[in-house]
Amino acid sequence: MLFALEDREENVGQELYALATKLFPIHRSITGDGVRETLRILQSVAPVEIKEVPTGTQAFDWTVPAEWTIRDAFVKNVKSERVIDWRKSTLHVVNGSQPINATVTWSELRQKLHTLPEQPTLVPYRTCFFKEDWGFCLSQEDFDRLDAQGEQTYEAVIDASVKNGALTYGEVYLPGETKDEVLISAHICHPSLANDNLSGICVAAILANMLQSAPKRRLSYRFVFAPATIGAIVWLSQNQHRLANIRHGLILTLLGDKGQLRYKQSRIGSAKIDQVVAHVLANSGAPYEIRPFTPVGYDERQYCSPGINLPMGCLMRTPAGEFDEYHTSADNLDFIHPDQLASATQTILKILGVLEADEYFINQKPFCEPKLGQYGLYESMPEQGDGAALQEAVQWVLNFSDGNHSLFDITQRSGVDFAVINDAATRLVAAGLLLRKNNSSKCGTGASLTNEQVRPNDRAAKR
Amino acid sequence: MLFALEDREENVGQELYALATKLFPIHRSITGDGVRETLRILQSVAPVEIKEVPTGTQAFDWTVPAEWTIRDAFVKNVKSERVIDWRKSTLHVVNGSQPINATVTWSELRQKLHTLPEQPTLVPYRTCFFKEDWGFCLSQEDFDRLDAQGEQTYEAVIDASVKNGALTYGEVYLPGETKDEVLISAHICHPSLANDNLSGICVAAILANMLQSAPKRRLSYRFVFAPATIGAIVWLSQNQHRLANIRHGLILTLLGDKGQLRYKQSRIGSAKIDQVVAHVLANSGAPYEIRPFTPVGYDERQYCSPGINLPMGCLMRTPAGEFDEYHTSADNLDFIHPDQLASATQTILKILGVLEADEYFINQKPFCEPKLGQYGLYESMPEQGDGAALQEAVQWVLNFSDGNHSLFDITQRSGVDFAVINDAATRLVAAGLLLRKNNSSKCGTGASLTNEQVRPNDRAAKR
Amino acid sequence: MLFALEDREENVGQELYALATKLFPIHRSITGDGVRETLRILQSVAPVEIKEVPTGTQAFDWTVPAEWTIRDAFVKNVKSERVIDWRKSTLHVVNGSQPINATVTWSELRQKLHTLPEQPTLVPYRTCFFKEDWGFCLSQEDFDRLDAQGEQTYEAVIDASVKNGALTYGEVYLPGETKDEVLISAHICHPSLANDNLSGICVAAILANMLQSAPKRRLSYRFVFAPATIGAIVWLSQNQHRLANIRHGLILTLLGDKGQLRYKQSRIGSAKIDQVVAHVLANSGAPYEIRPFTPVGYDERQYCSPGINLPMGCLMRTPAGEFDEYHTSADNLDFIHPDQLASATQTILKILGVLEADEYFINQKPFCEPKLGQYGLYESMPEQGDGAALQEAVQWVLNFSDGNHSLFDITQRSGVDFAVINDAATRLVAAGLLLRKNNSSKCGTGASLTNEQVRPNDRAAKR
Repeated sequence: MLFALEDREENVGQELYALATKLFPIHRSITGDGVRETLRILQSVAPVEIKEVPTGTQAFDWTVPAEWTIRDAFVKNVKSERVIDWRKSTLHVVNGSQPINATVTWSELRQKLHTLPEQPTLVPYRTCFFKEDWGFCLSQEDFDRLDAQGEQTYEAVIDASVKNGALTYGEVYLPGETKDEVLISAHICHPSLANDNLSGICVAAILANMLQSAPKRRLSYRFVFAPATIGAIVWLSQNQHRLANIRHGLILTLLGDKGQLRYKQSRIGSAKIDQVVAHVLANSGAPYEIRPFTPVGYDERQYCSPGINLPMGCLMRTPAGEFDEYHTSADNLDFIHPDQLASATQTILKILGVLEADEYFINQKPFCEPKLGQYGLYESMPEQGDGAALQEAVQWVLNFSDGNHSLFDITQRSGVDFAVINDAATRLVAAGLLLRKNNSSKCGTGASLTNEQVRPNDRAAKR
Repeated sequence: MLFALEDREENVGQELYALATKLFPIHRSITGDGVRETLRILQSVAPVEIKEVPTGTQAFDWTVPAEWTIRDAFVKNVKSERVIDWRKSTLHVVNGSQPINATVTWSELRQKLHTLPEQPTLVPYRTCFFKEDWGFCLSQEDFDRLDAQGEQTYEAVIDASVKNGALTYGEVYLPGETKDEVLISAHICHPSLANDNLSGICVAAILANMLQSAPKRRLSYRFVFAPATIGAIVWLSQNQHRLANIRHGLILTLLGDKGQLRYKQSRIGSAKIDQVVAHVLANSGAPYEIRPFTPVGYDERQYCSPGINLPMGCLMRTPAGEFDEYHTSADNLDFIHPDQLASATQTILKILGVLEADEYFINQKPFCEPKLGQYGLYESMPEQGDGAALQEAVQWVLNFSDGNHSLFDITQRSGVDFAVINDAATRLVAAGLLLRKNNSSKCGTGASLTNEQVRPNDRAAKR
Repeated sequence: MLFALEDREENVGQELYALATKLFPIHRSITGDGVRETLRILQSVAPVEIKEVPTGTQAFDWTVPAEWTIRDAFVKNVKSERVIDWRKSTLHVVNGSQPINATVTWSELRQKLHTLPEQPTLVPYRTCFFKEDWGFCLSQEDFDRLDAQGEQTYEAVIDASVKNGALTYGEVYLPGETKDEVLISAHICHPSLANDNLSGICVAAILANMLQSAPKRRLSYRFVFAPATIGAIVWLSQNQHRLANIRHGLILTLLGDKGQLRYKQSRIGSAKIDQVVAHVLANSGAPYEIRPFTPVGYDERQYCSPGINLPMGCLMRTPAGEFDEYHTSADNLDFIHPDQLASATQTILKILGVLEADEYFINQKPFCEPKLGQYGLYESMPEQGDGAALQEAVQWVLNFSDGNHSLFDITQRSGVDFAVINDAATRLVAAGLLLRKNNSSKCGTGASLTNEQVRPNDRAAKR
């Protein structure tokens, strides 16, 4: 495979987990210093460029909201004890709450409290973005303890600011030999939740780190670390001119739990990324699941909206809402596992390895078989075992390198391992029997866009 | 659903059965007063226009035959007793018989008698259209009784006329908002047979009655009540200029027996009508069967001939020849059932409801998701249960309203109930987020006609 | 069926076996007198034209090698006994060996001996084409006996010549009513091996004999008897101008063993030949297997190379390498069976019969059904049994003769036996209701060739 963990393999799980541990306490939101701090930490791993988009900027149907930053938050009882304390967990404050500093009765306060009655020891994660409200989250057990105190007076403080500022996102761009681009996206707006989505953030960052030091990249790689929904929308609206280059993409989330890998297909459903992920998962030896596209979920809702329609799927383990710890304080560092993060990373590297090597070649001797003996092809081949497979792969690659079959297509048709097909192609190129097809303008999905699906920048260009 | 039986539901079975009862005794044939009387009775239910096409009129490869009308027919024995009496059942005369008035011996007469030896109590239905002949039909038991009398003399009378006149058919046209048309056809040439085809005639007539009083029709509807084969051929030859408007169609027959619903696909096989009927039957909760097209059967032989090739399938219960009562005196009013007629009608209304609502829309905010909160979409939605399904439907409709997916296509892809998809689309149109696509010139099957399949009127136009 | 064995059926197995028996002792190679002698014997059966292509002639990436002819070969011990004797079996000499006449020690000789340790009684078949070497083959038992003699001196003689000459192949061309051509190819380079490939050679020759005396041929037929690989390559390179006419083809090999028939699809995979062979095998009542194309095997490697891409599959019984006798002295006349050769021949005649009759027709009365009664169609039809099937076939042929469905396509869609469909079409043509579609320029696979797949002669023409 093109990209290999090699000697990092043993350590990458620990590396990923350490990064998640460092990021866990930060209070991220859709805007604000939590996101900036997160991105600065990621800069220690990968060349993350931090972008600021001012409040009020239009992004398609949306507007960048005021920036929200929190400094402290608590509920104090009459003894001045912090009975709810943001310093213990960022989840205690409803994310996006308006600032408040008030003395309230228990009857008033309880209206603003959120619990999980069926999971009485857990604190829920709640948000109030895009509407003016505030609130606190706590366990049902803590709520019951307060309730047992009867009507009392409390001091409720949320020391937050909501003011003109910016939406912050991070971007890594690793240029390759071609402008054909792979886009990897992870949402970065959740506070102290480990699986959702420190797992996706850390895997993406470590991948960027690895690809940066790869000896060679045929494809270019772009990593976007942005708040869910509004962040993806802002990025898409500011990067319309880049979309035509995006050949494949993955949204990364929920990669650290004990569940099997699951892939949610792109809206296209039969894009190369859909095929390659299915192939790699099918050959992984581990259980996995492929799910069809739905317009409900993570940022595929934006990347796969009808006017954008990028060939991007979502890779995860247990999907949102299908595990009890989802959006609760139990989605913590105990819920994610170094080996699970590592094997997800390994799988993505395999996927990227196939995409990197998946080129179209043209057999230069297409009329009957070339007389292979005279090209010195076999001299470096092992005679036994792998040698036979390689010789067969040479025949497959020659026969189907007609300009219509990429190396991955030949793997799919022949059933021969992609690495062997790739090895055969490399040898045939060296022997002068294959020529790389210049198909950079052909392999995108853009060609199949209908008039209604034309991308925004294309549409603009037509006017 | 767009078309609902509502308070008529309880009564429609009785309505259908009462109409069939009124029509049962009439001696219909491919021409003549029996057809006219039948159509006049249908006029009490729906605005049936009665059309007369003169004898000798050319219709493609056929010619309208002389008109056949019968007034009386019997076989009398020497005691002047009517041993075979047309007044007891129209089946006793071979349909289309030449007039006869002769004294014949038993040896001569028996050559002209038709029985069902394996169903000795039943009278068969026989015809001699398009050849000059005559005959009587009776039960094997009655035949045996006569045969036991030995050689005797009989008076055989068929008081019929065969002379220049017309072929008569009925037509209902209910204009809708568009010229796109649904064609419903039922054959009307069979005499006292209930399932074949009073069931089809009555269901079509009651449907016409219901659609006439529908608050709104997007599509136009045409109902043709015509004799089998020659009637369909005459209608097609006289209406070639209308065929291009026909988007969907159903041939109705055999809808009153106890069998499950069966749908025979159009020649196209994948036409919208084929998909919608399959969908409605699959979601009916009742057993059903889909059969592929064959060029043998009812008037699909004409409507789906290669030069016509309309997107029309045939809806029925137990197919011709697959029930013992087929084309015998046992296909009588006891063989058809109000509830079976009613549930067939209900099913067709569901099919038409999907076709009515199955439009193409264009998402007006196709670049990322629109910010739905600002369109007042959710205010009227129920918060629980159906509300969640409706919100998901909103996402599906927005994502796939790209001009290539109709609402029915979105139902098929999403698995979301069509009524919910339709509800979501209605709300999105109201909110200005969807615009109706003008696709009347696109949704037909005409686009896929090959040169050989070009419709007759188009061909004429090219000359 | 168009082509029938008729009274030859009983004898054809014996005919085939007798021909194989006559050819068995000849020492064929890729060039030389063995091939010429073989072709001269085939001339007694079919009008085989013998073609000579001079040594040094370029054929795509290959060059016609020097001609190899053998006159005698042996290893003699000190008692002048032939301990290895080519006169006993041509397999004893490595095919293509350089001439040698040397006195050698056992230690030296054993380096040049080939055995099958796991099949100790069998002599292997070995070749050294395209490299300068020599050797002998013998059974492991004989080897062991020699080895037991200890170090001795032997006289090793291969009286062969390798010199400028020609590559020889045979060709039969049977012109038909159209230039559309069926190509049948059998490799002719193996010495005394019966299944591989006297079975293919004899079946092809007898087929040529039968087709020559057929009362009528719509298609033209070409039979190529050429050495494997280089022979096919030479034929293709010398016949580039003919390739566009080749509509269907079969490579024949391994047809005499006890195994079931197996068909390896063309590279196209969905060519008419692929469909028709599958249909005939599925209706044969015998077990069979269809395998997908691979670029490893017999001369499909050349005929289905990407620049040639002919619609040719390979018909065989047990495939190469999948039976123990493969490429050993056990692939002898006992290993092939007259009835197996005969049933393979019969199957191919059925396949060719379908291809011969598989034409496109146009219904001349495509608007509704024609009034069949007036065309005298039914008068010659049997009334019972077959008559009903024939009447149904008439409807199928009329309905689907729209220019897009050949008779075979109609068989596939209707499930009606091809012979009955063909009978119906013949009657409809006679009645003037069907007209033959001139589609000779349409039915090839050439239309789907991509730019990279363009045939060599076409490419040349474009320059």
